[in-house]
Amino acid sequence: MLEKINLKRKLTKADYKAVMADLEPKIAELQRRARKEGVPLAIVFEGWDAAGKGTLINNLILALDPRGSKVHPISAPTPEEELRPWLWRFWIRTPAKGRIAVFDRSWYGRVLVERGKGNCDGEDLLRSYAEINSFEQQLADSGTVLVKFLLHIDKKEQKKRFEKLLSNPSTAWKVGPDDKRRHRHYRSYLKAYDEMLEKTGTEWAPWTIVEAHDKRFATVKVFTSVIEALERQLNAKAQPQLHHPSPVHLPQGPVQLSPSILKDVDLSAKISRPEYDSASKKLQKRILELEHEVFLKRIPVVIVYEGWDAAGKGGNIKRLVRGMDPRGYEVVPFAAPTNEEKLHHYLWRFWRVFPKAGHITIFDRSWYGRVLVERVEGFCSEEEWSRAYREINETEQQWVDFGAVVIKFWLHIDKEEQLRRFEARQQTPHKQWKITDEDWRNREKWDVYRQAVEEMLLKTSTTYAPWTIIEANSKLFGRIKAMKTVRDRLEEVL
Amino acid sequence: MLEKINLKRKLTKADYKAVMADLEPKIAELQRRARKEGVPLAIVFEGWDAAGKGTLINNLILALDPRGSKVHPISAPTPEEELRPWLWRFWIRTPAKGRIAVFDRSWYGRVLVERGKGNCDGEDLLRSYAEINSFEQQLADSGTVLVKFLLHIDKKEQKKRFEKLLSNPSTAWKVGPDDKRRHRHYRSYLKAYDEMLEKTGTEWAPWTIVEAHDKRFATVKVFTSVIEALERQLNAKAQPQLHHPSPVHLPQGPVQLSPSILKDVDLSAKISRPEYDSASKKLQKRILELEHEVFLKRIPVVIVYEGWDAAGKGGNIKRLVRGMDPRGYEVVPFAAPTNEEKLHHYLWRFWRVFPKAGHITIFDRSWYGRVLVERVEGFCSEEEWSRAYREINETEQQWVDFGAVVIKFWLHIDKEEQLRRFEARQQTPHKQWKITDEDWRNREKWDVYRQAVEEMLLKTSTTYAPWTIIEANSKLFGRIKAMKTVRDRLEEVL
Repeated sequence: MLEKINLKRKLTKADYKAVMADLEPKIAELQRRARKEGVPLAIVFEGWDAAGKGTLINNLILALDPRGSKVHPISAPTPEEELRPWLWRFWIRTPAKGRIAVFDRSWYGRVLVERGKGNCDGEDLLRSYAEINSFEQQLADSGTVLVKFLLHIDKKEQKKRFEKLLSNPSTAWKVGPDDKRRHRHYRSYLKAYDEMLEKTGTEWAPWTIVEAHDKRFATVKVFTSVIEALERQLNAKAQPQLHHPSPVHLPQGPVQLSPSILKDVDLSAKISRPEYDSASKKLQKRILELEHEVFLKRIPVVIVYEGWDAAGKGGNIKRLVRGMDPRGYEVVPFAAPTNEEKLHHYLWRFWRVFPKAGHITIFDRSWYGRVLVERVEGFCSEEEWSRAYREINETEQQWVDFGAVVIKFWLHIDKEEQLRRFEARQQTPHKQWKITDEDWRNREKWDVYRQAVEEMLLKTSTTYAPWTIIEANSKLFGRIKAMKTVRDRLEEVL
Repeated sequence: MLEKINLKRKLTKADYKAVMADLEPKIAELQRRARKEGVPLAIVFEGWDAAGKGTLINNLILALDPRGSKVHPISAPTPEEELRPWLWRFWIRTPAKGRIAVFDRSWYGRVLVERGKGNCDGEDLLRSYAEINSFEQQLADSGTVLVKFLLHIDKKEQKKRFEKLLSNPSTAWKVGPDDKRRHRHYRSYLKAYDEMLEKTGTEWAPWTIVEAHDKRFATVKVFTSVIEALERQLNAKAQPQLHHPSPVHLPQGPVQLSPSILKDVDLSAKISRPEYDSASKKLQKRILELEHEVFLKRIPVVIVYEGWDAAGKGGNIKRLVRGMDPRGYEVVPFAAPTNEEKLHHYLWRFWRVFPKAGHITIFDRSWYGRVLVERVEGFCSEEEWSRAYREINETEQQWVDFGAVVIKFWLHIDKEEQLRRFEARQQTPHKQWKITDEDWRNREKWDVYRQAVEEMLLKTSTTYAPWTIIEANSKLFGRIKAMKTVRDRLEEVL
């Protein structure tokens, strides 16, 4: 999902100065509080070569009291360190109560650098992920706050920065053969980063992706994330009677900091009616063939439809299944849970209708309701939806390990298009049933929903079950894209 | 560790009746409370063939309101079930809020029966354990109470029961070829059970081992465990402001229910001085050789000494290292943590002195203080020591995966022997420093410590890092046994 993140975020100098004037004293004050309350803080900086780790760490450190913080630069293990279990050198550097340890690169070198060198793969890699999660959970359970930054730049930006460094004799040494090799293999490292995010992005030690093209934006994001994490823990400590830490309300800055995937989606994509007619006929025929192959090979297929109200889920599904053999697929719509369903775990009703091997189940809305409507409407607690990302990933991983194909669609339209469709529904007598007061109420919360959607896409788009965003302002375009995606994913596995 | 558990626990009929007269109404009342508060309860029965699952489940069910409970007999998956991910048939049977699901065999068939048939090994087995833990954690996190029973009988008892069943034509059918085969391979199943306990004994879904030779004892233990687990959850629900559920105080029955490993330890074991002299000389010589081999092969060795006060740890260690090369080993004594150490995670000070590859570190007291002195004296919370078993197992697993050998000694003496040694210390001027008021205070808590020791042995004696109990009433015997154990374990890996 990393490559889909909008990296064009930036801040003007004036905005930057204004925000930092708030953030710098705030972080210093929180450091004092953390020291007083004995809260240890570990900050991890990972990311691409030349992404600007040095500058960011420096900006952060300068705002802190140097007597309470320490930077640990991590490179290849020394011979002395190599004689110990690989986590040893990190364990001995874990921060004491009230102190801050900043790791300039970290234990993630194991699943990035070492993996890239071919020193960590297969079972060893799986075990390393498990060891990292266990290490971080042990620290978090004992009260350590963990903040993990992944500094993200794209290949072009990295190239530009390398060239700049190389053009100056006094910095040229910074770009070594290893850096160049990693640059050449940018795509395979991207995959490693994606996998790292999905395997180690836990509720006790979440990752923060920092869009690092613009250093001002990146600095603000780093400061804000540290402040948020510290405040959360200090508030939880101050009010232990609350089961869930109260949400943190940051001063509204001039910038939206959370990563955006939707921002780059081109909603102007469209297709003509004749193109649509001919393409859809071919695709429907092919999908029928694939449905039969899937049956013969006993592969269960899960197709998830999520999207904005009026994004056209129903119509899209109808076209997808139009040519299919009804004995091989099922469309299951999900709305609010029934009373019986409410008595069970939120995943239960979806497990129940998991397709038999060889069959296709199309979920019209799904378990993602947990991190969308249930989150936004407060039908579950923050603790519950926060851990749901991990739970959902674990569950989909189990399905894929069983041999299932999991295809997930987010049908995306913009706010104006939704308005047009709502109004059209209201003016068309036979469509009026489709629009309710609830739809209008949801619409008012567009921005809150959007934030939930972004977080969902970011945290649950895994290598084994990626999201596909369907540009659905044009219904025809959206239908073709969904059909093509189903065709391609099925052809891949067959 | 299963084979070390004392199975000779029994109850007289009179005691049984008296206890059950308390427990039966209590469990029925808790079922009503759980229903009212919407707490789901899942009870798992696993164990040896002919261990008496049927009778126990029946006893339990008869005490419950049948409208709120359901027994799920689990055998091989049906063709319909085989078309779904293997956990599917358990997910759809998870209990609704306020209801009780009793599983007569369960998802553990995967790592027992299927494994025994060769259908689940290697990476598949590791993944199955992870899937089980994830499944149980998801249920527990959403408020389901999980109680898991392992019904344990020894091979001789199983044989006796099979013979009795076979001798009666109306029950002979109950012993099939599969049962007979599993009986023949009792030892390999024992290992599978041990591994299952260590991989899936978590703080959110702990195992209860039921000594099942005596049905009365087993029934009482099953009832008590269900009552305890339900009460704990209901109390936590009633007082959400408490971070930790308050401990449950059961009415003092006539029986000690927690499993005993120490009870079977034969403390009369001894050895004569001439035997000791000749054996120790040979062993010390051999251990020196092994120390050098360990160095050449770069194997790190961790040796842990824990035991009662005055059990003779110091003297035992002295004899172990007497013949060794001081450049290759180190003895590190641990007492209460220093002020600096207190600022860190409890495992930190032990990680720091982890031996370099090729070296041996002998820990005179260790991280097990967390579940012994810190637990008993209240230096950490119940939540903290409860999860420490898993944390310690994870840590030792990492060390072993790195290539380390982990040898753990519990030096065991009885209360009378301790008294003799305390008194001897007080009467011998040059030994008086060895005995303090604290020793006497600890001694008063003997039974509480003993319970903590039993739980520690049970939960942290893993296939990769087993405990060895040293019968230390005879110091000479204990020293020889420790040396022999070190020799054997090192010879195994070299």
